[in-house]
Amino acid sequence: MDKKPDELDRLIHERIRLGIVSALAANDTLTFADLKEILQATDGNLSVHARKLEEAGYITVTKGYEAKKPRTEYSLSPTGKAALESYLVKMESILDSTRKALGKKK
Amino acid sequence: MDKKPDELDRLIHERIRLGIVSALAANDTLTFADLKEILQATDGNLSVHARKLEEAGYITVTKGYEAKKPRTEYSLSPTGKAALESYLVKMESILDSTRKALGKKK
Repeated sequence: MDKKPDELDRLIHERIRLGIVSALAANDTLTFADLKEILQATDGNLSVHARKLEEAGYITVTKGYEAKKPRTEYSLSPTGKAALESYLVKMESILDSTRKALGKKK
Repeated sequence: MDKKPDELDRLIHERIRLGIVSALAANDTLTFADLKEILQATDGNLSVHARKLEEAGYITVTKGYEAKKPRTEYSLSPTGKAALESYLVKMESILDSTRKALGKKK
């Protein structure tokens, strides 16, 4: 294998976090409620994983109010975009090798 | 997104387990020592994840002896092969959407 799974960015690879960064690659900003719906995640699970991405500087979080209700907006940071691009390259390479290997398998 | 990360087979997505099934897609059988070297995993970590895959019926495990030393061999089962193929299709779709989205991003 050219690219080993141990080279994968663990921060992005986790299922919910991959969902968050992928959704933010497709949308400039998303609210907590948007992400919850897209990912079908619980409040707790989404909060924990969003915080990890925020701490790594992969996403930026803006807290505010709309009609007196708290509204949290997320967006992908330049660091997060670069990390996602690097993850894509490595993961595509793993999938490509695996697909070729499966094709050869009896 | 067409394919959401919550549709990903969690059993395969985990980093070490993805490494195990990918390595077994490329090799008919691998020993515990082979996998340890390929994945740069600890004994404990590899054992735990290999057991999970075995319990799911994704890999088959043959325990034996060679020169009086225990030797454990792993191989991908037909169920595991089918699960890996399905994972590849979903993951490729996620990566593809994400790559397109990143390309459009300012």
